[in-house]
Amino acid sequence: MAAPRRTRARDVAAGRPLVTADLASVTWLTGLATDIETGPSPFSAPPVAILDPDGSLLLVVSEDEAPGADDGVEVRTFPGFALDDVDRPGEAGRLVLEALGRPAVVAANLASLPGGVAAALAHAGAELIDVSGALQLARAVKDPDELDAIRAAVAIADTGQAAARDALGPGQTELDLFAAVRAAMERTAGERVPLLADCVSGERTADVGGPPLPRAIGAGEPVIVDLVPRLGAYWADSCATLVAGEPAAALRRLHDAARRALDAAIAAVRPGARAGEIDRVARAAVEDAGGSYPHHTGHGFGVTTHEEPRIIPGSRRTLEPGMVVALEPGSYGNGFGLRVEWLVEVTDDGSRLLSGHDLAL
Amino acid sequence: MAAPRRTRARDVAAGRPLVTADLASVTWLTGLATDIETGPSPFSAPPVAILDPDGSLLLVVSEDEAPGADDGVEVRTFPGFALDDVDRPGEAGRLVLEALGRPAVVAANLASLPGGVAAALAHAGAELIDVSGALQLARAVKDPDELDAIRAAVAIADTGQAAARDALGPGQTELDLFAAVRAAMERTAGERVPLLADCVSGERTADVGGPPLPRAIGAGEPVIVDLVPRLGAYWADSCATLVAGEPAAALRRLHDAARRALDAAIAAVRPGARAGEIDRVARAAVEDAGGSYPHHTGHGFGVTTHEEPRIIPGSRRTLEPGMVVALEPGSYGNGFGLRVEWLVEVTDDGSRLLSGHDLAL
Repeated sequence: MAAPRRTRARDVAAGRPLVTADLASVTWLTGLATDIETGPSPFSAPPVAILDPDGSLLLVVSEDEAPGADDGVEVRTFPGFALDDVDRPGEAGRLVLEALGRPAVVAANLASLPGGVAAALAHAGAELIDVSGALQLARAVKDPDELDAIRAAVAIADTGQAAARDALGPGQTELDLFAAVRAAMERTAGERVPLLADCVSGERTADVGGPPLPRAIGAGEPVIVDLVPRLGAYWADSCATLVAGEPAAALRRLHDAARRALDAAIAAVRPGARAGEIDRVARAAVEDAGGSYPHHTGHGFGVTTHEEPRIIPGSRRTLEPGMVVALEPGSYGNGFGLRVEWLVEVTDDGSRLLSGHDLAL
Repeated sequence: MAAPRRTRARDVAAGRPLVTADLASVTWLTGLATDIETGPSPFSAPPVAILDPDGSLLLVVSEDEAPGADDGVEVRTFPGFALDDVDRPGEAGRLVLEALGRPAVVAANLASLPGGVAAALAHAGAELIDVSGALQLARAVKDPDELDAIRAAVAIADTGQAAARDALGPGQTELDLFAAVRAAMERTAGERVPLLADCVSGERTADVGGPPLPRAIGAGEPVIVDLVPRLGAYWADSCATLVAGEPAAALRRLHDAARRALDAAIAAVRPGARAGEIDRVARAAVEDAGGSYPHHTGHGFGVTTHEEPRIIPGSRRTLEPGMVVALEPGSYGNGFGLRVEWLVEVTDDGSRLLSGHDLAL
């Protein structure tokens, strides 16, 4: 039996064939988690998924990556790494066009559709309808197997946050702290872990985030550790602000406010709640303490690091059971910044905390 | 003054506008090295470079990434990370089409051209000519600034290879060895380093490569450490086979053969030499000792990990000054494998060794 998300994708396509080369949508539909850490492979071409109106799903993919597709996905392959020269993008495009036949209308992630495929369809008179936005919304509600995968990724984020607390010491550089954190996450995962991360200390925290640098962490300085690991096909997220030594009073006061903002946001999460209202209660709790943050209050996540629902000012998007939301209020100004972040799942009558890491300063 | 590579790209386009969204070609033309380690950003769209027949170069790019472009590149931006929702791919496509005007013919990296752009050009009657192969060849000869960037990346690979020798001990896992190696490379670089790597030990070495796993390295076992780091916009490459303890006689014998193969390959590198001939002398040196390898003898590298010239059996491609070549003969079979790899630059009368790492077992 195909996953509920395949049915939601068919609804988006509304009786037309759906073709997508958007990596996130391909992963979501087929389970294929491609290697991403070193950019596009010079020995491959992006995978393309084709969902037929009858519900059958076809993946055009390199023979090297084909084993990564879920059961129930038909796979057609083009050559992988080989000694001889092969036009892999050309072969991939040929397979996609052959599978599509001569459709009058195609629903597509238009921007990521390979140019050769798009031009050939246009020349053949096919109408191309962009359904990127609708697919993003369809991805927001997670299926049970997706929630399982997300929980496994969250456990890796928890490991990293605990390792940051263990490893932090004054005089250490951000880069060395980051190396210890990532090594702990990969040891727990038993494999390399793609990892988006902010790891900034001292005055760098005023800028919200950034990658680790050879900056030595001073005693009493805040360190923002935001860890966004991928395990298998799914991402998690997490943030804590740590201090090596005794935090200043202003930092402690605004950190307390951010914790209250997080609690208020979590309390506001339930089916039917509007994203803008969750944003409002969190932002108000920080502003009541004289702080502010220039970013979103939160966001969905899953096969990418940021998905719907976005928890932003004024949004009338409503939450539904099965959505997952990262909530991350903070405060920045006067030469320092801080942020706290936990993840929740929207349940039938409220929310369930997914994160397991400590938020203490 | 524009770099020589821009002139080579104009020659490929032969009087037509050239448009490319192939990440490697965009980097090559504009200097922009995008963040790649966590896959496509949900808050962006791929950058697109447009080279006019008059030699002027335009980059359509997210405002967040725009500062990464070289001087002498005109930049037009679409919105970056923002609180409000924006159709970034749509805006990027609009800017590209506006810049192209109504061309009769466009030279393109066709497969990576955004689908919406390709379809719009096709509808407007433009002929799309795929110049992907010709651009790959044009990238093979490196400009002086590219050689500088490559040397800096090679220094990071050297650091990693030295760290592997320092860190290796029996009982250690591949993952822990890898963590030590990567931390040393990032400490030297002063920043995070995108890193493709084989780190396999014992019987895993028979399979040529693979990512590090929690496998404990046994005394006397070979460990293949192949490190491919990116620094800035350019990649390096490197491989050594290490042993914690005393290597077996068969391993030592085939390692000696691979070293002779590498020396023979390097001796064969000069302007006018055919890639297939370099492959032949290296392969023969290993086969004379009863070994063999299923992969290429070598490859170019630069803005991607594998470029022209590919050093493969039968290739009649000839080397030119300014090309860079990774040479990596090895041997695999009877339950173990090994490989050695150094990089050379093709000079006016031979070659210059770029790598500085030790190859001893």
